[in-house]
Amino acid sequence: MNKIKIIGFDADDTLWVNEPVYHRAEDKLKKILSNYINDCDIESEQYKTEVKNIKLFGYGVKGFTLSMIETATRLTEGRITSTEIMKIIDLGKEMLQTPIELIDDVESVLQELSGNYKLIVATKGDLLDQRKKLMASGLEKYFDHIEVMSEKDPKSYERLLTNLNIAPEQFIMIGNSMRSDVLSVLEMGSNAIHVPYKTTWKREQVDSEVMNKYDFHSVKSI
Amino acid sequence: MNKIKIIGFDADDTLWVNEPVYHRAEDKLKKILSNYINDCDIESEQYKTEVKNIKLFGYGVKGFTLSMIETATRLTEGRITSTEIMKIIDLGKEMLQTPIELIDDVESVLQELSGNYKLIVATKGDLLDQRKKLMASGLEKYFDHIEVMSEKDPKSYERLLTNLNIAPEQFIMIGNSMRSDVLSVLEMGSNAIHVPYKTTWKREQVDSEVMNKYDFHSVKSI
Repeated sequence: MNKIKIIGFDADDTLWVNEPVYHRAEDKLKKILSNYINDCDIESEQYKTEVKNIKLFGYGVKGFTLSMIETATRLTEGRITSTEIMKIIDLGKEMLQTPIELIDDVESVLQELSGNYKLIVATKGDLLDQRKKLMASGLEKYFDHIEVMSEKDPKSYERLLTNLNIAPEQFIMIGNSMRSDVLSVLEMGSNAIHVPYKTTWKREQVDSEVMNKYDFHSVKSI
Repeated sequence: MNKIKIIGFDADDTLWVNEPVYHRAEDKLKKILSNYINDCDIESEQYKTEVKNIKLFGYGVKGFTLSMIETATRLTEGRITSTEIMKIIDLGKEMLQTPIELIDDVESVLQELSGNYKLIVATKGDLLDQRKKLMASGLEKYFDHIEVMSEKDPKSYERLLTNLNIAPEQFIMIGNSMRSDVLSVLEMGSNAIHVPYKTTWKREQVDSEVMNKYDFHSVKSI
């Protein structure tokens, strides 16, 4: 850790709870659709829509909401009414206003580290939404910089380090997503610590055989 | 101009055409709604919805699309079908895939300036969408940095200059929006050049009396 100058933290499901917000929305979508269809794996249908749209919509609640409307229209074969679709938009608005729930011990960890390292947030998702969540979290004061990235691939991390004016070996990333927070960072020559969260979005999951090829720390909790 | 080290460019309607993309979408929305309603100023109804939602949705196509669905449902009192709502989502997808049309002379101006100044893009809107537009524009090579901001207020510009490590007087902003590209920047102590575009989003318009109080250059074209 001696060379490390900057510590990057992922935000969703690393600093605060996120996946459960999406799961609750999907449960409510199921309820809305139960007037039209039964015996349907709505979660996996929604996942299909999300993956299909991700290149256009990117990450975050707004794209997720548009995809929920698309899923609902497809699964009901157009029978869902626009009044019910407004309920789906309201679900999205509710998601955007969910109070922030910090992950256990996050604040004391940041407090301890912030004296000795420069801390930054490096997160995916919606720019406005992520900034608002950081403000609402009360954690903003610990961070020198917040970077909302459209994709957390090695190239984007490289650009981030160039802007921060540090070498790869001086950077370590801490996060719950193997793909975005660990593998991308290791590939670029930096360091990473994996802190799993109880649920991970399907798209971020990585085969354990692939994981075994890489050298990184994995800890149970932050 | 001697002190200036970094020149910031707004993107939408400064580097490339943007407002017309939104206007075309509104025209198509009118067509979809013409099966349900007539004699309605759909543009100003859509504007009302956008302004109501802006704190939650921010700027960009995805929020605009969700607002179009909301406008359509409200104006048709729920009579619009989900199949027609899918057409609105498709309008949004179409907007996200509109080929980039550069504003006249932009490239030659960037070419000339890039030898003597550090150039950056400072834009509002959707992170993924703005990055993709910059890539598609072919202008990426002229810029050292792209900053997608959730709001272009003096505080956000201050944060940007701190990250860039320069003083306000070393920065000049060029853009079509009086509110976001000129007034915010002047208030923070930097310089600005206003390059109006033929149409400006209502929310960005500023009273000419207010404009007269400020000291800045206004040029007819870039």
